[in-house]
Amino acid sequence: MSGKIKIGIVGYGNLGKGVELAIKQNPDMQLEAIFTRRSPEQVATVGSKMVHISKAEEYKDQIDVMILCGGSATDIPEQGPQFAAMFNTVDSFDTHAKIPEYFAKIDQVAKESGKVSVISTGWDPGLFSLNRMIVEAILPHGKDYTFWGKGVSQGHSDAIRRVEGVKNAVQYTVPVTEAIERVRSGENPELSTREKHLRDCYVVLEEGADAEKVKRDIMEMPYYFSDYDTKVTFISEEELKANHSTMPHGGFVIRSGQTGEGNQHIVEFSLKLDSNPEFTASVLVAYARAAYRLQKEGQTGAKTVFDIAPGYLSPESPEDLRKRLL
Amino acid sequence: MSGKIKIGIVGYGNLGKGVELAIKQNPDMQLEAIFTRRSPEQVATVGSKMVHISKAEEYKDQIDVMILCGGSATDIPEQGPQFAAMFNTVDSFDTHAKIPEYFAKIDQVAKESGKVSVISTGWDPGLFSLNRMIVEAILPHGKDYTFWGKGVSQGHSDAIRRVEGVKNAVQYTVPVTEAIERVRSGENPELSTREKHLRDCYVVLEEGADAEKVKRDIMEMPYYFSDYDTKVTFISEEELKANHSTMPHGGFVIRSGQTGEGNQHIVEFSLKLDSNPEFTASVLVAYARAAYRLQKEGQTGAKTVFDIAPGYLSPESPEDLRKRLL
Repeated sequence: MSGKIKIGIVGYGNLGKGVELAIKQNPDMQLEAIFTRRSPEQVATVGSKMVHISKAEEYKDQIDVMILCGGSATDIPEQGPQFAAMFNTVDSFDTHAKIPEYFAKIDQVAKESGKVSVISTGWDPGLFSLNRMIVEAILPHGKDYTFWGKGVSQGHSDAIRRVEGVKNAVQYTVPVTEAIERVRSGENPELSTREKHLRDCYVVLEEGADAEKVKRDIMEMPYYFSDYDTKVTFISEEELKANHSTMPHGGFVIRSGQTGEGNQHIVEFSLKLDSNPEFTASVLVAYARAAYRLQKEGQTGAKTVFDIAPGYLSPESPEDLRKRLL
Repeated sequence: MSGKIKIGIVGYGNLGKGVELAIKQNPDMQLEAIFTRRSPEQVATVGSKMVHISKAEEYKDQIDVMILCGGSATDIPEQGPQFAAMFNTVDSFDTHAKIPEYFAKIDQVAKESGKVSVISTGWDPGLFSLNRMIVEAILPHGKDYTFWGKGVSQGHSDAIRRVEGVKNAVQYTVPVTEAIERVRSGENPELSTREKHLRDCYVVLEEGADAEKVKRDIMEMPYYFSDYDTKVTFISEEELKANHSTMPHGGFVIRSGQTGEGNQHIVEFSLKLDSNPEFTASVLVAYARAAYRLQKEGQTGAKTVFDIAPGYLSPESPEDLRKRLL
């Protein structure tokens, strides 16, 4: 490989900052520039080059892979096709119901531009999907379970913040230990939504808000909270900042499957993450390496974790991987 | 896909029997024949066609993939190249030091015959290797640990059986819980051989054997036992048959890695298997599907788990996988 893989970052939130850090751990890569919708001179960085997003096209020949770090609700659906027309891209698009449609769109654009776009990677979708798929193919007679947490759910935290009388809030999704133990025991239980996860909410009230009403409004919120055992704790803004500002997360994918005359096998993949955005970013960076190499080999179009041979994620040669890790 | 994938099994020991069972769980496959060095009419099967191994060549056009179920010491090194010259193959070759040499040989033969050979798959080498490789690529700053067990080690059981005065023996490799907990805590410990695994031996003595001497001979055996805390329990042949004739196994691959300013991430993959041969067989069968499809697409040569996009393992279409499992 001649020279380093040149990376661009689109969007400088928590995920974008995580990518900036992750690139420093990979000597075969270098960060070329970060693209933002804000005024570049007003964004504080740790020495990286900041460029307004409208100028991205000028970097067509300087950047090998663009890592899209915006949100799945509005940023990625727009930026995905736009950047796939000019660059190899990697994103963490996670609006599950829209993945087929998003894949089709990106696949068409990337095939036309002759680029590779890895979509919907990270840990879920991403590594968790990979484990669900591989283990199901190996143990077709079985059942799989995904548990998330303990970790902050941005969507649920946002939902609480929209409740009248709420100033700020953080919601933790907590997997129920008894449910995990039942799955690990090979019991193959049918688990309701309520049996799998708890919702633990830390809420700062607006001055003069009715705490009982806020609590009721949260706990009765359809889809987000009404199907769960929900705990609401009111705390001060200072307490929220001091004790609830890190972004841990994690989870478990467990498949319990049977072979032969009732032999039982439990396959488990789990994550315990101090920083959800930094770990997700590290996954995106490894898939950026894959996107670059696949396109060099003449491939084009949209790819998911299912379509990429794992060896492409590593900077090492196939010979070294076989020798050291097989 | 027109018709089913036609599978042949070479070698009808525990692994071969596991493959026979696994094929029944996969409606896109069918078992064509089992090849044995024994007299076919003297081998009891559950209705499968048994053929002498010398006649394998006659099945060149009838079998899509041969799954090699012999041992790594002498069978696979000989049968691998021999069958790769005629068929797509899958094997579980696990003599680690010889993998590079074996890969080179098979790669050459399979490229000449226009076939695909997936070598060294199963769970270790295989799924464990996959996890070591992927997670290292994602978290380059970190350390990984592999623990095996609790499970029967064939090699260590055989070593005990060679001790003078021993009639029969089963050895369990047992991972040390405290060591696993230290790794899971993110401590990144340096662990000696003795700190990682215990060796738990159940031994049947020959009549008149000196128990104390046998125990000492086992515990002082270099490489196999002298570096470990070893427990020797003498039992009767009946007890051995009744309580130690199943083949459970399992293990853990754990990587502890750091990103950013000291954020810690723990990624763990674990297996708890009632039957080591049946689970290993199920992995081989999924990779047989991949070998078949890769060769249909025009690929040739030796492949490992690192070289194969996971989607090839599943009978489902990429569209369905994206929709259901991503």
